[in-house]
Formats: sequence, C-alpha cells, structure tokens
Amino acid sequence: MKYKLLIEYDGTDFSGWQRQAGAATVQETLENALAMALRHDATVVGSGRTDAGVHARGQVAHFETPIPIEPTRLRGSLNGLLPETIAVRDVTRVDDAFHARYDAVSRTYHYYVTTIPHALERRFRAPIYPPPDFDRMNEAATALVGTFDFNTFCRTASDTQNRICTVTEAGWIQEEHAGAWRFRISANRFLHGMVRAIVGTLVEIGHGKRAADSLPDLLARADRRAAGPAAPARGLVLEHVTYPDSR
Amino acid sequence: MKYKLLIEYDGTDFSGWQRQAGAATVQETLENALAMALRHDATVVGSGRTDAGVHARGQVAHFETPIPIEPTRLRGSLNGLLPETIAVRDVTRVDDAFHARYDAVSRTYHYYVTTIPHALERRFRAPIYPPPDFDRMNEAATALVGTFDFNTFCRTASDTQNRICTVTEAGWIQEEHAGAWRFRISANRFLHGMVRAIVGTLVEIGHGKRAADSLPDLLARADRRAAGPAAPARGLVLEHVTYPDSR
Repeated sequence: MKYKLLIEYDGTDFSGWQRQAGAATVQETLENALAMALRHDATVVGSGRTDAGVHARGQVAHFETPIPIEPTRLRGSLNGLLPETIAVRDVTRVDDAFHARYDAVSRTYHYYVTTIPHALERRFRAPIYPPPDFDRMNEAATALVGTFDFNTFCRTASDTQNRICTVTEAGWIQEEHAGAWRFRISANRFLHGMVRAIVGTLVEIGHGKRAADSLPDLLARADRRAAGPAAPARGLVLEHVTYPDSR
Repeated sequence: MKYKLLIEYDGTDFSGWQRQAGAATVQETLENALAMALRHDATVVGSGRTDAGVHARGQVAHFETPIPIEPTRLRGSLNGLLPETIAVRDVTRVDDAFHARYDAVSRTYHYYVTTIPHALERRFRAPIYPPPDFDRMNEAATALVGTFDFNTFCRTASDTQNRICTVTEAGWIQEEHAGAWRFRISANRFLHGMVRAIVGTLVEIGHGKRAADSLPDLLARADRRAAGPAAPARGLVLEHVTYPDSR
C-alpha cells in the first residue's frame, strides 16, 4: 500500500532534504521516524530535493508499506517521534501508481524578505537592506513567465542536462506586517539553486544595479556568471506541489 | 533628550519583559545594549510588561540620554549588539513629555493558533487539537467588547486594584495557511494573564465544553476560577501600542 505525506519543515538545521552520509537531512529523519512507527524500513520519496537551510510548508513524499495503516493515527505517531523542526501535516492513502516526484506537475516556492529588522520570523525570512524597489522588481519578474532555458539561474555544478523550465507565475507580494514581502514563483520544474539565483538577481535590479528589462538578455546568455549572487537559503520555502486530478 | 523604540522580540527564551534578578529579560538585555551604544546607563521604560514566553512585534519603550543621537545609526548599533531574538525596528526622537506607559491609549494583542501540526512558526503559534468551532468562538467573543470588570480573566496573584478595562475589538481571523487562525483583541489596558485566560476560555467554548453565550455570566462572577485555563504563552504577541496624535 502506498501513502502520501504532506510535510512542513524548518530547514535551518538540516543539510537539505536528501539523505547523505554524515549529515542530518529531512529525508533521513523522516525515514527513521517511519521505521519506528511501522516497525520496518521504508524509503521516503520526495517531490524533489531542497538545499541545506531551505524550508518547506508543502513538501510531498510517498512511501510503501505492506501493513494497512490508519492515516490519522500514523500522523500522530510520526509527529510524536519527529523533532519539532519537522511536522507531518497530512497522511493519505494513494493509488499504487502514484509517484511524488514523477507525477508532480507544478511546484510553488515563496521567498520571504523583510526590509526592517525583525526577530519572530528570523528563521525563514531574509533581511534586505536598504529596501529595494519592489515595483521595479515586479516589472522585471514578468520576463520570467514562459518556457525558457534557465541555465543562467542554474548552479554550475548541477549535472541536470535539460534546463528548460516553464514558469507560470513570478512576482512580489506585499505582506501584512511593515517591511514584509515575499516573492512567489511557480513552475513545472526548478533547477538547482534557481529560485535563489533569481531572487539575488531581482534584488540587484531593485537596488538599481541592473536594468529592469535585463532578464531577457540574461536568460539568452545561458551563463550563471551573468546573474546575481544566490539569495540566502534562509528565506526560501517550498510551499506547494501540485498533482493532476488532485492526487 | 527622549527617544522612542519600536521593538520586536521572540520571548521564548526570556523571563518576560521586566528586569528581575537572576533571569534573562527583554528590558535588561535592551538596557545592556543601550549602555554599550550610548556609553552610559539608561533605563528603558516599556508600554507594559509581557509575561515569560510572550512575544512582541510592536512593543514601545522610551529612554533618555544627554547625548544627541542619530536615530538610524542607533538602531543599527543596537541591532548589532542585541541577540537575534530582539530587534529594534525603529528609533524616533520624541517630546520630553512622552511616556511609553502612561501615554499609551490602546494595546492590541494577537494570539496565533494552528489546528494542523506545524514547524516553521512553532515558536509563536500554539497548536489546538481538535480544531475548535471558530464561528462559535467568534459569536462568544462579541460579549467581550465594552467596558467591564475583567476580574474573571485576571491572574489571582495580580495586585492591580482597578480591574475595569474597555475592550474595543475581539475576534478570530482565519489566516492564509491551512489550519492557521489568530485571535485579535484591543483594549485601553490589559490585566495580568488576561488575553491567555480569555483565549483558554474561548477554546473551551469552541470545543463545546461551555455555552457560546457564557461570557456575560462569567464576567459578572468576577472569579478567575470560573474561567478556563490560561492558553500557553507561546501563541501570544503584543502587536501594537497606540498613542494620541501618533506620538
């Protein structure tokens, strides 16, 4: 039987999602809790990796077990076993054909910033001083919507060959509290370091260091060195993963 | 010269606002940073105390100094000296007659809850399981608006004699993320433990343990034992303090 997990995590103290030797990762921590709860080893397959320090409010993963489980009960057991930095928000039974990574049709990331010193949300909101021009950044971001080769915004060490992504929305939203904004971007897929490179470049535009219409040229150059620095991992949250027919 | 500070803090690791021997408090931490920045001792007078574990996004305080200071510079120095759990959001010069506590005409607290396991906002949002009936709690909360003796919702150990408060708004608001709600309450003044006692009582109403119209009777009894338990400090945030003519 296959089950789907909806997972929130504070990535501050993790070396990213993916299991790796000698480092605390979200996947490994979940697999350890699951092994305790199910009394057998189980592999947790996520919708995608998140980097060290990156958070999630809507990571999706699946696992298989021969034991029929009651989803609400398992959710309770897992949350009792997990550290407070990881929460299982939902457990649902899914079709055996479901695959958290291959079936995902869209991902949404939010990048949270503040232009005023803050304390409460410091673990998942990055400061930007001085305040950038958000209108100008929004004007620039419209050029990201469409199907393009995003090599300019892909970490150079990435071994992903296909760098074509379709971005369906990209823009900055002002939030309730003074100085708080977030950048929302949705795409069918994301390359390594893509959102952070885009945010870092947009902030340079917002600070007047680049022209507001510079993104089409940057994309055409297909050269990571042409873009701005990666924004800190701290502000990035994987908010939502979409599946067809609300799988 | 007198200056006003707008302060945000994560109260999790503090024994409340007010300076006390042998405990880390927000006031003392601020006074230590201020002494370093100004090179003389200065007393920080807050708009009011917050209890151990309670947070603030809009605490207001004042201090005096004989040295003319540039507000933006002092803000930068203080934030460099303070731990990441306290941020000075703003520093402004005020009239010598200004008093952070006596001049405040209204305070607003928000109490943040979640009905779904969470991780990112765990330091300032309290879980409530099972989900209470928020419509019922909102119906009940309307009875709080007005001028009443709030003795029923005042910590018994409090030595405050006058327990009459004027509440100008009280209600639950659904937030953006699934399962997230907050209770917003504004009043001219608050008694010790008042918001947490009100929230704890409303949650009992939301869980069907008390009638939705039970608050008028509870207020009339003027007995803390008649109300529900205090909700955890974790969810409570002092959001805003209002002064006349936007002092």
